[in-house]
Amino acid sequence: MTRHFEKAEGLCEQRDPATLGFVFNQTMLRIADPVRSLDFYTRIMGMTLLRKLEFPEMEFTLYFLTAGDDFSDISANNKERTAQTFGRPAMLELTHNWGDSAATTTYHNGNSEPRGFGHIGFHVPDLEGACQRFEDLGVAFQKRLQDGKMNNLAFIKDPDGYWIEIFDANRMAGS
Amino acid sequence: MTRHFEKAEGLCEQRDPATLGFVFNQTMLRIADPVRSLDFYTRIMGMTLLRKLEFPEMEFTLYFLTAGDDFSDISANNKERTAQTFGRPAMLELTHNWGDSAATTTYHNGNSEPRGFGHIGFHVPDLEGACQRFEDLGVAFQKRLQDGKMNNLAFIKDPDGYWIEIFDANRMAGS
Repeated sequence: MTRHFEKAEGLCEQRDPATLGFVFNQTMLRIADPVRSLDFYTRIMGMTLLRKLEFPEMEFTLYFLTAGDDFSDISANNKERTAQTFGRPAMLELTHNWGDSAATTTYHNGNSEPRGFGHIGFHVPDLEGACQRFEDLGVAFQKRLQDGKMNNLAFIKDPDGYWIEIFDANRMAGS
Repeated sequence: MTRHFEKAEGLCEQRDPATLGFVFNQTMLRIADPVRSLDFYTRIMGMTLLRKLEFPEMEFTLYFLTAGDDFSDISANNKERTAQTFGRPAMLELTHNWGDSAATTTYHNGNSEPRGFGHIGFHVPDLEGACQRFEDLGVAFQKRLQDGKMNNLAFIKDPDGYWIEIFDANRMAGS
């Protein structure tokens, strides 16, 4: 009996109890222009801004966005909401360094040399509908559904050029 | 009345119903050596491998890891578990291109030029205990708790050099 659902070399089979309660909370991306990115992630991707934290002495602002449809558990109290923001899974943290703007700053999306980070990805309930809507809204595509071999997924690009994979989880099950 | 919890320029206040059900599912990082990375993320970070997908014709393997303590909802059936893997929030997707190895490949962590992606981050229930354990296990630190100004967070490095922020959500609430 293994604690994992697959076999693979390197897997630790005995869970260290010291890791209980660890939460994979956030993925941080630098952005050139917060107005442009907040518009994209809230209007196009439907995300909600849970917390904004400004650090004037270090001249940056953090924007914490979440996907989801029910925020009835989220506190209006800033301190409580900060704890919720850092304790939840799947927060997107956008970092804006105050000197940056779309005119002056280009960030690297990790998919050309030097490579590393690849993409973030979203499940959508209606894949064709979502992709048609992205087209209608003028979103840039890296790969349309019909491009290449994998026709059950698309890649769009956020305003900084970061790749966002779009798929319907239930249609990945042929994989 | 706003649908967001903060004021910021660029926010879309009217949620497009077409975005209901979107799930921020995954963050993908390329890795040089799956044995090394699976050991790190399962032994050090306590994550569980939910799904492994091999693509022989394109010569890469995807490893989908999740944090968490209860997997009683996860199916042993591969197709059902694939759908669960792509439908859940906060999956870490590690991509291994078969030609890559630790001896031949170095990936870019996004925090030196050209910058972009910054880090992933974990909430831990016992911050000092977690950091002492990382020290004891020989994990590389980018920033220890006592380094610099922000003494309620640390940054460790995964085997490819990607930064992982470590914090206790409840102690970020002073922010």
